[in-house]
Amino acid sequence: MIRIAIIGMGLIGTSLGMALRTADAQTSALGPVQIVGYDQEQSATRAARGRLAIDQAARSPAEALQGTQLVIIATPVQAVRALLTQLAPLLPANAIVTDTASTKAEVCAWAAELLPASVHFVGGHPMAGKEQTGPQAADPDLFHDAIYCLTPAAAVPQTAIDAVEALVTTVGAKPYYIDPAEHDAYVAGISHLPFLLATALVEVTSRSPAWREMAPLAASGFRDTSRTASGDPTMYRDICLTNGTALTRWINETISFLLAMRDDLEAADAEHLEAHFTHARQTRDAWLNQQPGRRPGEAAFDTPPHQVERSGWFGRRKPPERG
Amino acid sequence: MIRIAIIGMGLIGTSLGMALRTADAQTSALGPVQIVGYDQEQSATRAARGRLAIDQAARSPAEALQGTQLVIIATPVQAVRALLTQLAPLLPANAIVTDTASTKAEVCAWAAELLPASVHFVGGHPMAGKEQTGPQAADPDLFHDAIYCLTPAAAVPQTAIDAVEALVTTVGAKPYYIDPAEHDAYVAGISHLPFLLATALVEVTSRSPAWREMAPLAASGFRDTSRTASGDPTMYRDICLTNGTALTRWINETISFLLAMRDDLEAADAEHLEAHFTHARQTRDAWLNQQPGRRPGEAAFDTPPHQVERSGWFGRRKPPERG
Repeated sequence: MIRIAIIGMGLIGTSLGMALRTADAQTSALGPVQIVGYDQEQSATRAARGRLAIDQAARSPAEALQGTQLVIIATPVQAVRALLTQLAPLLPANAIVTDTASTKAEVCAWAAELLPASVHFVGGHPMAGKEQTGPQAADPDLFHDAIYCLTPAAAVPQTAIDAVEALVTTVGAKPYYIDPAEHDAYVAGISHLPFLLATALVEVTSRSPAWREMAPLAASGFRDTSRTASGDPTMYRDICLTNGTALTRWINETISFLLAMRDDLEAADAEHLEAHFTHARQTRDAWLNQQPGRRPGEAAFDTPPHQVERSGWFGRRKPPERG
Repeated sequence: MIRIAIIGMGLIGTSLGMALRTADAQTSALGPVQIVGYDQEQSATRAARGRLAIDQAARSPAEALQGTQLVIIATPVQAVRALLTQLAPLLPANAIVTDTASTKAEVCAWAAELLPASVHFVGGHPMAGKEQTGPQAADPDLFHDAIYCLTPAAAVPQTAIDAVEALVTTVGAKPYYIDPAEHDAYVAGISHLPFLLATALVEVTSRSPAWREMAPLAASGFRDTSRTASGDPTMYRDICLTNGTALTRWINETISFLLAMRDDLEAADAEHLEAHFTHARQTRDAWLNQQPGRRPGEAAFDTPPHQVERSGWFGRRKPPERG
């Protein structure tokens, strides 16, 4: 029986709890689990309990940590720093800590700075989500077949990596090992730039004096392109504050592209315009046709989760693949 | 029995045919219909026939027009001009012509220039679509509850407007009368800017040397923000060529917004950043909470289609509401 504490009962924390508690203890790499949950908002902890995401509701981080071997911090990025500071003196030796925050370089640096050497930190980021927030939106299948980035530092013992990998496969996701800085640069493009463009679309159209007339004409194209603008503003703010450099680079690339499109519009350059749209369509369709949840280079590395050798969650030894 | 010709058996033309042929002739404002279809690609006409979108496949525009009272041109914008030129001498007196193209100002100007005075043109644009193209993607429910813009010139007789409105309600959509230039300015923001941003997202990320590593990490945020980048490149090109001025204005607004975001990122201005995301979320959620397919000012103008007085498709007289 492994005791797991989840700190933060939002969409991700609650979904993780539900996925862990509904996993088959006979076949999962983690075996039987007991989940204790904590959120600074007691109503969130209660809602998570009501959704059967946790076995026990803790009233403080200290209570959540009692007897816990694995701690999952599932809060927006900026809250992770304060939590690491608060948890550091409470964590038992050999405790394993992971997080689910959207950026990894700063989080990993904070963990190295704030946690005692006896505690093992493995940064994590499930590549799954939706625009609804809070425990009410949680879904035990949220991580099914999703890639789950893991960013352990070189010094982290393999047992700790194995434990977090067992957590990842138990919730149905696919572990993908990657350097924290590389992770942040990549997700800035494929995850953060999308919500920035969605926000831009909503903001520039809704600021127009004609918005009241335009809005009812907006249909599925507007709805889908803007979907992530309905996501959590605190999470987005924290992503911007911890991944500003990478995001700025993508903003600059986007502005360059828009300026080129504007030139093509002004020149009425039919050939150029069509070439952009054709290339984008081909590229997106090729992306869609990749097997969902397939990790980079997975063809050469294909171990379905159910074939993973199971010898207790501290028992496995295999080198992580690095991105 | 009304004989309707649909020129262009793509997504929209085929979906219109399917919707018209499956409508209940007893209760629809059009009554019984006979649909003849034509596409310059014979395979498209055959596919539309196979999907029961048309009663008869024509081998030429001239054949399609024989005995036809109502002609629907369902091609990308640029093809409309050539078709109007080609159809003009073939159209019987009092024929009614409509189109489904994404921009309206140029189309309406072409119709005024090219069609004989005895023929009545009512520009149309259903605010519905999807990224898949061609007759295979057609769906008789595509227009259900969608707003369908109509842009008749002032001189068009009411009988012609009534006939096209009957077509619109028969396919389940809601007619919305609007000036062509106003239409183009609005849809540039809520329909064309979205596909431009979707294209920008795919192009800037996929041009990165790291795209191969990034692509597998892309998840639902990327998928939805980029969805319309999989749309028809020819349609997009034509939209750009006929709505460049309005689109350029929205591109400039977007660049201004992105520059402001970049400043906030560089200044690490948490408050400003969060304010943008909060406002965008509230605005989008308010938009989502509007009744789907509700036209501007509809509260003061609420005649569900099934209550529309039916006295033959040429029999109704009511002034169109103008945007």
